[in-house]
Amino acid sequence: MSATTQLRPGDTIGILGGGQLGRMMALAGASLGLKSHIYCPDPNSPAFEVANAYSVAPYDDVAALDAFASQCQAITYEFENVPGPTADHLNARVAVRPGVKALEVAQDRLAEKEFLRSAGVEIADFARIDSEADLTAALEAFAGQGVLKTRRFGYDGKGQVMIRAEGDADGALDSLKNAPAVLERLIGFQREVSVIVGRDVKGTCEVYDIAENLHENHILKTSTVPANVSAATAAVARDVAVKIASALDYVGVLGVELFLCGEGSAERLLVNEIAPRVHNSGHWTQDACLTSQFEQHMRAVAGWQLGSAVRHSDVVMENLIGDECENWAKILSEPNARLHLYGKAEARPGRKMGHVNRIFPKS
Amino acid sequence: MSATTQLRPGDTIGILGGGQLGRMMALAGASLGLKSHIYCPDPNSPAFEVANAYSVAPYDDVAALDAFASQCQAITYEFENVPGPTADHLNARVAVRPGVKALEVAQDRLAEKEFLRSAGVEIADFARIDSEADLTAALEAFAGQGVLKTRRFGYDGKGQVMIRAEGDADGALDSLKNAPAVLERLIGFQREVSVIVGRDVKGTCEVYDIAENLHENHILKTSTVPANVSAATAAVARDVAVKIASALDYVGVLGVELFLCGEGSAERLLVNEIAPRVHNSGHWTQDACLTSQFEQHMRAVAGWQLGSAVRHSDVVMENLIGDECENWAKILSEPNARLHLYGKAEARPGRKMGHVNRIFPKS
Repeated sequence: MSATTQLRPGDTIGILGGGQLGRMMALAGASLGLKSHIYCPDPNSPAFEVANAYSVAPYDDVAALDAFASQCQAITYEFENVPGPTADHLNARVAVRPGVKALEVAQDRLAEKEFLRSAGVEIADFARIDSEADLTAALEAFAGQGVLKTRRFGYDGKGQVMIRAEGDADGALDSLKNAPAVLERLIGFQREVSVIVGRDVKGTCEVYDIAENLHENHILKTSTVPANVSAATAAVARDVAVKIASALDYVGVLGVELFLCGEGSAERLLVNEIAPRVHNSGHWTQDACLTSQFEQHMRAVAGWQLGSAVRHSDVVMENLIGDECENWAKILSEPNARLHLYGKAEARPGRKMGHVNRIFPKS
Repeated sequence: MSATTQLRPGDTIGILGGGQLGRMMALAGASLGLKSHIYCPDPNSPAFEVANAYSVAPYDDVAALDAFASQCQAITYEFENVPGPTADHLNARVAVRPGVKALEVAQDRLAEKEFLRSAGVEIADFARIDSEADLTAALEAFAGQGVLKTRRFGYDGKGQVMIRAEGDADGALDSLKNAPAVLERLIGFQREVSVIVGRDVKGTCEVYDIAENLHENHILKTSTVPANVSAATAAVARDVAVKIASALDYVGVLGVELFLCGEGSAERLLVNEIAPRVHNSGHWTQDACLTSQFEQHMRAVAGWQLGSAVRHSDVVMENLIGDECENWAKILSEPNARLHLYGKAEARPGRKMGHVNRIFPKS
């Protein structure tokens, strides 16, 4: 559909996926007078509670998709694994933003790495792995070390094997069920940072400050802003984010995860992966910026002008995982803590139940 | 019901009234993991769009009220004219906060003025008016000038007559359909300010900074913070708000409108009226404070600890009335403007369609 469709207040944005990201998008849209229609197969989706309408149906239910599309003036998604045929089918009816190309790239680690390289951003060396022979050759090239990752459907550390020592590679492909994979060269000392960028239908970008991220058990635990990086590195990170968004002709908010390698003057950034959606490491923007990533995304999807990404406070975002959400009352008692809970009924281990932004105004 | 009931995340707060205030309360609650159930006779209520559940029924429909109460762990309201029997009926089943007493006081200008005087706060002289004879006598006592107001159901300048000159009183009571009324003494040079205070179930108060308000056609146009008042006056305003909330054993957010009379060292505050709910002149808190008045209210109603009312930015709130909401795209282009639209379909003259907070971080 038209690349420049502009919605009006009162129009409806369809959101594929009904988790916390869809929920926070719907809440941000509502403040701007935009309605949301959530589409998700799970009847207990937390986003349903705050949406004007919702559809419970599989992603390949053509009749349900058609009904959904007929009620929306634009459609977006909260997760990158929207099936390609679903996105194509909807996009033939109503503008799907950030767009089908971003999905294609983000769904396949190999395609993503090839795209990133072609876009001129630095990434770790990688090799396509379709067989044991590929793996053996790649490990030889990468000094015997690397991270083996499935090309599709990996998240939060699932679908990957670390290979550090001889023997680690034995059975590695089997453990990934011999799915098509890539091997990434293991890089040395590193920290993890991310950049969130919004891009509107006219190509204008708003880049948020770089965040420094800590993971526990492969799940994001905290994002701290400002990150402890040089101004030069921060500028590179911003450039990288804009370059990627522009190369994808992207409309919406994009998350870019990067490795920060080396120290001091040897500081260097490698893009790890991109997420064509609002991103957990951008939740801090809700309470520390003039415009949150969720509002920014909805503005872009609506074909509207972006808001300012200026940050007014220092901030540490902490995910509340599993039963950590039981600390809600204690968190409410902290003067600078902003609590966000997702309305999920059951606090299973490893499940993201909410987050807290601890903010420190600059003044 | 128990005065100290404490909800848990996932519980439901019932909201009587489905306008923009209920909508913004529901949105604020959702961020904290609280569900909302809106009860409103109007099938086109803007709050329905963001609530987990809603009931469309008259306020005297006992069966609908019972069903509503059975699905809520606490109930609040967005407007002070909730019928007394409705509040009583619900309160026998589930905690109604801010409480029935606040409603009784706020629904009758005479009861409100008597309460305020008994609470020890300064107000303009007033007289109870039940007849032409009462009016004649009161005007004589007030130097021939005053504002005649119905005791019930007045808002946005409706239900009042200004009496400045001889002859203005003729037919004044008739024009108010001879409803029970009060006459307020006309006071001299004045500006209008307001204070928003939150009070929790334990009696702890959080007071927001005083706002200076401008009205157009009796409808609030702008609220500016900081107000142009002395520190001493600001302190008095805070004390007055706390005194009133405490005297009502109030739970929730309360708006107090005041007249600022005199200048310089003669600056003096008179309470005009109170609103037992979140208040239009507190909308600026959404973007200039750590905790918005809406979140504050939901926290109090949930029996939770209040958040910090600290203000991090200077701010001017402007109401978008009638077709002013058509300026949405221009407002979105202003870097410091935070747009809030209420999702109302029709922009009728005088109708509050949204507001914009223009913020100026202190740093």
